Amino acid sequence: MDQASPATAPALKVAILGFGTVGSAVARILADQPASSPLKLSHVFNRNVERKRVAWVADDVRWSSDAEQVLASDADIVVELVGGIDPAHDWIARALTAGKSVVTANKKLIAKHGPELTALARKHGGAISFGASVAGGVPVIDALQEGLAGDQLYKVCGILNGTCNYILTKIENEGVSFDSALEDAKRAGFAEADPTDDVDGYDARAKLVILSRIGLKGIVQPEQIPCMSIRSIGAVDFTYSHELGCTIRQISRAERRDGHIYASVQPALVPIDSPMAHITGSLNLVLSSGKYGGQTAFSGHGAGGHSTAVAVVSDLLDIARGRFGDAARPQVAADVLPVTGNFASEYYLRFTVRDRPGIVAAIANALATHSINIDALLQKPGFNKDALPFVVTLEHCPAEQLEAAMRDIRKLDFLVHEPLTMPILTKEL
Amino acid sequence: MDQASPATAPALKVAILGFGTVGSAVARILADQPASSPLKLSHVFNRNVERKRVAWVADDVRWSSDAEQVLASDADIVVELVGGIDPAHDWIARALTAGKSVVTANKKLIAKHGPELTALARKHGGAISFGASVAGGVPVIDALQEGLAGDQLYKVCGILNGTCNYILTKIENEGVSFDSALEDAKRAGFAEADPTDDVDGYDARAKLVILSRIGLKGIVQPEQIPCMSIRSIGAVDFTYSHELGCTIRQISRAERRDGHIYASVQPALVPIDSPMAHITGSLNLVLSSGKYGGQTAFSGHGAGGHSTAVAVVSDLLDIARGRFGDAARPQVAADVLPVTGNFASEYYLRFTVRDRPGIVAAIANALATHSINIDALLQKPGFNKDALPFVVTLEHCPAEQLEAAMRDIRKLDFLVHEPLTMPILTKEL
Repeated sequence: MDQASPATAPALKVAILGFGTVGSAVARILADQPASSPLKLSHVFNRNVERKRVAWVADDVRWSSDAEQVLASDADIVVELVGGIDPAHDWIARALTAGKSVVTANKKLIAKHGPELTALARKHGGAISFGASVAGGVPVIDALQEGLAGDQLYKVCGILNGTCNYILTKIENEGVSFDSALEDAKRAGFAEADPTDDVDGYDARAKLVILSRIGLKGIVQPEQIPCMSIRSIGAVDFTYSHELGCTIRQISRAERRDGHIYASVQPALVPIDSPMAHITGSLNLVLSSGKYGGQTAFSGHGAGGHSTAVAVVSDLLDIARGRFGDAARPQVAADVLPVTGNFASEYYLRFTVRDRPGIVAAIANALATHSINIDALLQKPGFNKDALPFVVTLEHCPAEQLEAAMRDIRKLDFLVHEPLTMPILTKEL
Repeated sequence: MDQASPATAPALKVAILGFGTVGSAVARILADQPASSPLKLSHVFNRNVERKRVAWVADDVRWSSDAEQVLASDADIVVELVGGIDPAHDWIARALTAGKSVVTANKKLIAKHGPELTALARKHGGAISFGASVAGGVPVIDALQEGLAGDQLYKVCGILNGTCNYILTKIENEGVSFDSALEDAKRAGFAEADPTDDVDGYDARAKLVILSRIGLKGIVQPEQIPCMSIRSIGAVDFTYSHELGCTIRQISRAERRDGHIYASVQPALVPIDSPMAHITGSLNLVLSSGKYGGQTAFSGHGAGGHSTAVAVVSDLLDIARGRFGDAARPQVAADVLPVTGNFASEYYLRFTVRDRPGIVAAIANALATHSINIDALLQKPGFNKDALPFVVTLEHCPAEQLEAAMRDIRKLDFLVHEPLTMPILTKEL
């Protein structure tokens, strides 16, 4: 019972494009599979491939520095791990056009060209799978697409960028500055030399685009989603947040409501006893909310060669099970919807000012002009009067209303630098 | 792009056996599906079906009090929601033999007869899916089977019974007795009139059998897994646990190691800052650990008509996508492995005694005879000397070694009732 059935078809040949950390981890897992596995590594492409060659890969695997050769080969499935848009887009399109299937971890490409590539796969009888593109080893794409297919999901949110989470929890636990936490993340291998994609939110945004399409059936372009950097978060913000019963996380969220997709990526205050607050270091978390089944949570290692490789191999096995059946699957329509970042919430504003009389009055006036109510004013003692940080919390208001008030406030002459605004998400997630 | 493809096949006809909370929620979700849905409700069976009839179900659905009629019908998929072994087993076997596919939420049946029914489905070209049998709306079966298929999972554990979790968190938060918390759970609809299956662990055990088979590829019989009731947990145990930095949860765990399946269902101490401790009320949690991807967590509503119905409909959609393709899938072998509950861990022992000199010495002697080291002795003041509770914590030792010592200790004449033993799981999960 439940025994392996006799192999009814030869194993599918798998070509890996890009033999870095993830690529070699994929090869490692494939090498560890039992002989009855429906998958067999056949090709490895990398630039200057000779320096990548490893002894534990089977002798009959063909190593190549020529991507054209691999694309023209008899490989059944191409695993794209080179990243970026070019030449990955072209290579994937050509593999699909040749009737091959494709597995990719490329969130940037899937966020931008996913629907087009899925259509191309269907047209040519192949499949394109990208479970590794969001939250690495956490099988959330699969869960939204299949495990929760019976629900109507209206909201997804999560902690999608391990670098930001590592940096924020570092600032929180050690009271260091953003710059110091970033340097530490670089040394620990959790941040790249150019951290822009991570800390400014673009990486999380690409993942949110994919989650919106798969979970909310809403087609969104990355540029449509407002993104806020975590660069201006300091230890002082954790001090004030704790006073409010909260901590700070980079939160990506999307909601389908009133014919719109509401979406944003930004640092936010979340209650200290919320699932978000429990996610520390480089872990990822995704929460989905459905009309019927309520909220479901998925968490685990979002990055790292092995976690991502598990997602790639799971996609490979899924294609092997379906024997390219994906193209025949009835697809649920995804709609192109207008996108807005105009969520309403309570807000946390942190100002750093050259202290003088009238500052609170000036800020309060600007807020009142835009019909925004102040909830509380927090000021810790012991700071330098030339760069005095204090916090104003606001009652519930829409993001655009706050933004209009902030345009006025930014003109005030006592600001030492740009005020920091973060939503306080006590009930929204 | 990503639009619905023209329907290439008529919708699959779905028959529901059992129109209770879950059955009617499944019908409701099917009624809400778009016209392009690959699923169509065709039959509803229930005893005395007339009292179940609802107006929002399509006119052409056939209602029947005769299960034979429905099994002999042209329905493509049978959804079994009558529960229990008989007659569910016979009905499912006959549906599968007739080439139909089956979706079921019946954990007891799948725990006992899953491998046999899966083989029967494969033989006749159908599929049997049971995503709703574990953790209701949390798509963990799907995740272990597909999303994490690329990993080699070696451990699964979790909080699988919402009734126990509701009762335990009630005792914890309100300091009430087990009996009082159980009565409350009955009133709130979280416990049945006969709570045995839930509080004595049999419900969680059936789910653990299924997780072991799907996640660990180990075929286990329910009777092989040791089960401990939560009936003897009192508010005093939470008091002592908190002192140890822990709380108490009913933990189901299975581990594949050294050619064995280690498995147990029992109340256990877990650290207050662990994912387990954050699961309160009727929520469910499953943690899986893989060789490559590390630990992944899934949580959400484990029970309730709507959550379970989402899992059923997700399974229906999966069958519709595969058009019975499941039978053609290469299956990973599951092995029949010897089962043991002989986990090693630290332990919490709570004794209730008629106080007199020499009690600690007698217990310490019995433990020493079995080479077990005492870690600490905890005794809160203010209890009645005729029924004095105190706690002994033990250093790491195997369950069987402790059990041998407990056989001696149970003979001691100062015990007011059976001592309570619980593992302290600080690193094991």
